[in-house]
Amino acid sequence: MSTTPTVIDYVLRRLHEIGISDVFGVPGDFAFPMHDAIVAHPEINWIGCCNELNAAYAADGYARVRGVGAVSTTYGVGELSAISAVAGAYAEHLPVFHLVGMPNLATQANRALVHHTLGNGEFELFRKMADIVVGASAIITPANVVSETERLIHEALYNRRPVYLAFPTDVVDKPILATSAPLPLPVSEPEALTAAVDAVAQALSAASTACVLPGLLLHRLHITDIATQFVDAAGLPFATMFADKSAIDEDHPRYIGMYDGQLMEEDVRVFVESADVVITVGTMQTDFNTGAFTARLDPARTIDIGLHRTTVGSAVYQNVEMADVLRELASRAWTKRFPPGPRPTSLGPVVGSAAEPITAAALYPRWADFLREDDIVIAETGTCSMGLAFAQLPHGARFYNQTLWGAIGWATPASLGAAVAAPDRRVVLITGEGSHQLTVQEISQFHRLGLRPIIFVLNNSGYLIERLLCKDPGIVYNDVATWNYAELPHALGCDDWFTERVTTCGELDEALAKAAQGDQATYIEVVTDTYEAPPLPNKLHENVKTLYNIG
Amino acid sequence: MSTTPTVIDYVLRRLHEIGISDVFGVPGDFAFPMHDAIVAHPEINWIGCCNELNAAYAADGYARVRGVGAVSTTYGVGELSAISAVAGAYAEHLPVFHLVGMPNLATQANRALVHHTLGNGEFELFRKMADIVVGASAIITPANVVSETERLIHEALYNRRPVYLAFPTDVVDKPILATSAPLPLPVSEPEALTAAVDAVAQALSAASTACVLPGLLLHRLHITDIATQFVDAAGLPFATMFADKSAIDEDHPRYIGMYDGQLMEEDVRVFVESADVVITVGTMQTDFNTGAFTARLDPARTIDIGLHRTTVGSAVYQNVEMADVLRELASRAWTKRFPPGPRPTSLGPVVGSAAEPITAAALYPRWADFLREDDIVIAETGTCSMGLAFAQLPHGARFYNQTLWGAIGWATPASLGAAVAAPDRRVVLITGEGSHQLTVQEISQFHRLGLRPIIFVLNNSGYLIERLLCKDPGIVYNDVATWNYAELPHALGCDDWFTERVTTCGELDEALAKAAQGDQATYIEVVTDTYEAPPLPNKLHENVKTLYNIG
Repeated sequence: MSTTPTVIDYVLRRLHEIGISDVFGVPGDFAFPMHDAIVAHPEINWIGCCNELNAAYAADGYARVRGVGAVSTTYGVGELSAISAVAGAYAEHLPVFHLVGMPNLATQANRALVHHTLGNGEFELFRKMADIVVGASAIITPANVVSETERLIHEALYNRRPVYLAFPTDVVDKPILATSAPLPLPVSEPEALTAAVDAVAQALSAASTACVLPGLLLHRLHITDIATQFVDAAGLPFATMFADKSAIDEDHPRYIGMYDGQLMEEDVRVFVESADVVITVGTMQTDFNTGAFTARLDPARTIDIGLHRTTVGSAVYQNVEMADVLRELASRAWTKRFPPGPRPTSLGPVVGSAAEPITAAALYPRWADFLREDDIVIAETGTCSMGLAFAQLPHGARFYNQTLWGAIGWATPASLGAAVAAPDRRVVLITGEGSHQLTVQEISQFHRLGLRPIIFVLNNSGYLIERLLCKDPGIVYNDVATWNYAELPHALGCDDWFTERVTTCGELDEALAKAAQGDQATYIEVVTDTYEAPPLPNKLHENVKTLYNIG
Repeated sequence: MSTTPTVIDYVLRRLHEIGISDVFGVPGDFAFPMHDAIVAHPEINWIGCCNELNAAYAADGYARVRGVGAVSTTYGVGELSAISAVAGAYAEHLPVFHLVGMPNLATQANRALVHHTLGNGEFELFRKMADIVVGASAIITPANVVSETERLIHEALYNRRPVYLAFPTDVVDKPILATSAPLPLPVSEPEALTAAVDAVAQALSAASTACVLPGLLLHRLHITDIATQFVDAAGLPFATMFADKSAIDEDHPRYIGMYDGQLMEEDVRVFVESADVVITVGTMQTDFNTGAFTARLDPARTIDIGLHRTTVGSAVYQNVEMADVLRELASRAWTKRFPPGPRPTSLGPVVGSAAEPITAAALYPRWADFLREDDIVIAETGTCSMGLAFAQLPHGARFYNQTLWGAIGWATPASLGAAVAAPDRRVVLITGEGSHQLTVQEISQFHRLGLRPIIFVLNNSGYLIERLLCKDPGIVYNDVATWNYAELPHALGCDDWFTERVTTCGELDEALAKAAQGDQATYIEVVTDTYEAPPLPNKLHENVKTLYNIG
């Protein structure tokens, strides 16, 4: 006695099947029928956010943990407010579904002058804008909903990119007019797969030294375990680049540390760059991954196992999937072990006595010590992530940073998304106060949802990373409004949180101990001097010419 | 001994000449040289904001008061975060200049993988997105800076639309390579102007009754005085539509009230719709201007004086400028006076004794009484603007609402922009708490700048306008996180503000009296029951079918 599903039933069922059980968003009249359906769905939760940009960042954070995410907004004003975060999901390889409510078909056909438009009777302009920053898009009808939904799911999962679906209000509850089975994802071309794996194996067998640089796509594809099996089987050491931190567990005996070109960890650089073979697993040679373009990987000695193709020297193997290549490599019979490389370092001993101010040297080792197994660490772009990135993380802990898109403000709502995605894991947000100011209101949602994040806000009186990269560090645009951060959680309704403002190492130690108990959501404002920076930002300061391609 | 100006010198000088003395923005590395120049400019102030969307809304508010505005952001992350507000400036006819910092030419030529990009080596994607929602755009070079700047200024001022200028970092400080005089704005075609004015005069001379509907372009063009002279000279009554409220002073003896179709003020509707001639001055027949499409203006009896053309019945006069037509009409010799129409009503007597809760009937008349001459009232989209719009404003007071774009969150930062634009006038922000949550952090900038706004936050436990327009008013997506609003100013650093939470009429009266003293910035949380709404939102609730074109 099955009834024909409605348009929105079909879409929500499919989204749930691929792993989405929460949709972040802000309501609006053109999205009412869609949002009614989301709220009514027995297996999908509506997670209201304060604004659309934050909702989309939350979907980003959720997708980092779950593999997929969804954000829903109204037309025009809502979708465009979210679009920067959607672009970020593209840059960061996150399949975020952006569900947009549109005016109904009569309004569109009449070219009616309605709110949330430019007043010119055009209704597909915003979809055109989205098209530039998503993998695929569709305006849904009862006739196309099945084929378009399947196409978009395919694009989102195969290329790990965001997609855009718009629903005219009167289409949402119409019965679907076609059916389909889900589109299977492509499989690797068997001959190419064998050839690629043979070529990798041959290169490794001829090498005396080798190193893997596993990339963030392992997280995106949830194949960290397969990559780990390969590293174990082949006896390979590995380092990671900035965006890829914690791609494989950092307590693994073959982890050697962070590779950041000539800026940091010289022993890692020497080991990686002198290896006979370097295997990059979808890593990108971006500015902040390469130590401001100071990394020097010899293409002739580099193997890249990419999302859909593998490159070994000058040979390119198309239509081979990253997971398949790694799985095949892990299952080969390997006999030799490669030299293990340097031992990873963390951030050194905890320094600073109780009465002393909180220096960078005092702060970052304390944060490193605070982290524990399976933590989800959301580290905002800026000096704080650049310091914490060189801590060695405990088993199962994951470090997320929006390295390529690099939008400040991302981390606060992204940590909300991560917490919703994994309510049983500890979520630790580390953000500078300048970044926090962009999106601060979203901390109120943690409280509304009964989640208990641990939030550190580094208050150093402005945008420190900018002070270190611009011409005049003291210039007024690097200042931000002075806030009383520790008062914010209560003002934003988080009335049962542990909040503290710490200015000395002793206060910091006490607050950390309290936070570690884990019985309360925690918000700690950590006050440092204006220019207290960990090593990497200072190195970037010295290397602005290579960072910015200034000849 | 003149030296050749640099690219940015030229642009900033020209922006200052057309009325911009403040640039709102958020810094970022690709915008450093541009922002260095803005900070260094002797006649232009850098106004740092918490985030880019807010900065662009502030530029919108500034442009409403000053006629022009400017926002500056970094590449990608910054510009896309602002783009919804830029689209809003398009919808709302505001010439906002969006100045974007781009990676340098070497980075672009190398297709380098740098932060704030999609990681695909493409650098003009975001400009393409902007192009959809601005009047014109340019990527600036030393060769084109003069011609492009003049073209963009022309577009911005002639069509009252936002424009987009992107500056690669290494172009900013280069000397310009061409010169030009400013492009003069077009003048009306003399014969067409005479013909249009004759036609209007003839229609009026044949009419026994007539009414003017002056539009918001009078504010945008700063020609309210000319329109007033015409109304005075021709002895014409006038009403206004929602988006156009206060287009001409509401204490004018010929003002008859708000025309909102069949939803409100029936006597105004009857008068307007039965007039022999109705003269619309650039007004738009949008959903919220027409009482959910219940207005019935007979095209055969309607004259429209548009931005660049005038329509009289079936005759269209092209290439005649609104200001010229109004000026000519004002200078004609008029002999008869038209029947004056109904007297405008305001919001009725103040009701509610001191101990009583704050009902809508108690609240809106109090707000109306609170307003005084020359106030700048920024009223957020939602029930609060829909209530206050039917107050009769004192002389010189201006009412601003983002009626067409209708993005909630606009009002809070727009009021910052208005306060920066007119530091000597009183700025009154009226916002619902749901809307306020989107952009709340920007109130910290008032304090940083020493400005003294008066802010009312209507706390009715959610999005009330949505409750009234959706199917199930109590549905969870209409709820927002519970905040302690009165604690926010202090948490956000506004430590010398008068803040109060009021739940009874007596508390409200006391707070209003204190606020009226004007010696402190003021932030008042006004608590009402969930469903306390003024008349218009309830009327919309009853008219959702016409509002949404549901057959």
